[in-house]
Amino acid sequence: MSTTFIDKLREAQDRNRSWVCIGLDPVMGQLPACVQQAENPLLAFGRAIVEATADVVSAFKPNLAFWLAEGLPGLAALQGVIEAVPDGIPVILDGKFGDIGHTAAAYARAAFDQLGADAVTANPYLGVDALRPFLERAERGVFLLARTSNPSARQVQDLSIAGRPLFAEVARLAVAWQADFPGACGLVVGATYPQELETLRQAAQRLPFLIPGIGAQGGSLAEAVLHGPTAEGVGPVINSSRGILFASQGADFAEAARRAALELRAQINTQREATL
Amino acid sequence: MSTTFIDKLREAQDRNRSWVCIGLDPVMGQLPACVQQAENPLLAFGRAIVEATADVVSAFKPNLAFWLAEGLPGLAALQGVIEAVPDGIPVILDGKFGDIGHTAAAYARAAFDQLGADAVTANPYLGVDALRPFLERAERGVFLLARTSNPSARQVQDLSIAGRPLFAEVARLAVAWQADFPGACGLVVGATYPQELETLRQAAQRLPFLIPGIGAQGGSLAEAVLHGPTAEGVGPVINSSRGILFASQGADFAEAARRAALELRAQINTQREATL
Repeated sequence: MSTTFIDKLREAQDRNRSWVCIGLDPVMGQLPACVQQAENPLLAFGRAIVEATADVVSAFKPNLAFWLAEGLPGLAALQGVIEAVPDGIPVILDGKFGDIGHTAAAYARAAFDQLGADAVTANPYLGVDALRPFLERAERGVFLLARTSNPSARQVQDLSIAGRPLFAEVARLAVAWQADFPGACGLVVGATYPQELETLRQAAQRLPFLIPGIGAQGGSLAEAVLHGPTAEGVGPVINSSRGILFASQGADFAEAARRAALELRAQINTQREATL
Repeated sequence: MSTTFIDKLREAQDRNRSWVCIGLDPVMGQLPACVQQAENPLLAFGRAIVEATADVVSAFKPNLAFWLAEGLPGLAALQGVIEAVPDGIPVILDGKFGDIGHTAAAYARAAFDQLGADAVTANPYLGVDALRPFLERAERGVFLLARTSNPSARQVQDLSIAGRPLFAEVARLAVAWQADFPGACGLVVGATYPQELETLRQAAQRLPFLIPGIGAQGGSLAEAVLHGPTAEGVGPVINSSRGILFASQGADFAEAARRAALELRAQINTQREATL
């Protein structure tokens, strides 16, 4: 792979006129009856979703947890689903990795070399050691958790460091780290906290944003579109998982997912035109 | 499983007169030549280590990264190695999990139900949502990262919250969370920061400590023994990985690992007698 993660993301955003990312987070008990009979239901489900939506999105984001929850067949399905993603669409492995350098290097092997992901998500709590093995890879990316989308995010992320919240301090560190490494460093910023989206965009004007929290979690699409793009015009990775994956529980689940992805793309593009 | 994680840990500590935990962190390229020919080298290596040391330790701590780095055979090996651990020895799955509640529930299924671990490690950055699915399990445990053992730990963990470092604030939160849930909440406190060990023991007198950083990372054993035990006398989980796993690169690797584990146990027990 010679293109960088950012180039690959930009090209997919332009080609598919889309900032939509589908979070590939299947839950075994919630899969449509028609895939439950497949030899590997997670693989059948994930592949069908990818094939039905790959021309409507600019990224896929499988979260490691949902595949590991099914053990070996789950990991095999994750590999197969990532293989089914067309070459031009980046894959972000959502593992929220955060471990000491020696261990982070093993996660980089797992994510990039074993699974073939283009980028990962990572946790800032251990400092730069935990990110170096990812950021040293010139053609890959890391989205660092700044403001997560969950209700208790404030408990730690809003703690005040000399009058500034911890999540803003993390953004400041990420800007510095981005300058030190060849890989792309971005931020995870939940759409459920619109005010923080604006604060973080001002603090880190050139870092790409991965924005979860749209859909089931109730985040603001308007704010995500307004504050999402970087100063250089790299669009945000706006993630939706459950709203697309489980748009229908019937045999039409893949077409329903496509319709839901098309609708989210249209909503985003309407907002984009409104903010031009 | 009806015993709690803490009871299981205490019983193993008493039965084997040991606070030693072996970190099961194999690296494919570093395995002895004699296991490289096995059908699954990681499985052959891990099983041999567990069988040679299970009566000398009070816990095993496989770190998920090193097994995932080898893909499907790696995850299969991790399952097989955990199955080889005798019933009375707790297994701590070191995944440093930290994700929103819906996803944390999937990690709890992966760690406890698929892999059969007794406890996990977790990251505090997302607040209590990310811990609830682990802490709701009365018979399991969660060690929350407070002070990690790596050099850049200070970049984030030492940020000052109203005059107190972030890692101490995390300990304060962990004490509160422990009171709200049936599962056991402990702290990860690197032996490479002896001063912080003392600070954290005072801040969280009843939380069990998982102490990495002994051995290859150069942490202080004396401080780990002095400040490790809880007020109720639950000993610390003192982890060594590379110093035991790679004590020999020859065909005697398992006996060499046993000798290294016995030596660490003796060093710890000598320190325990000196601090009585």
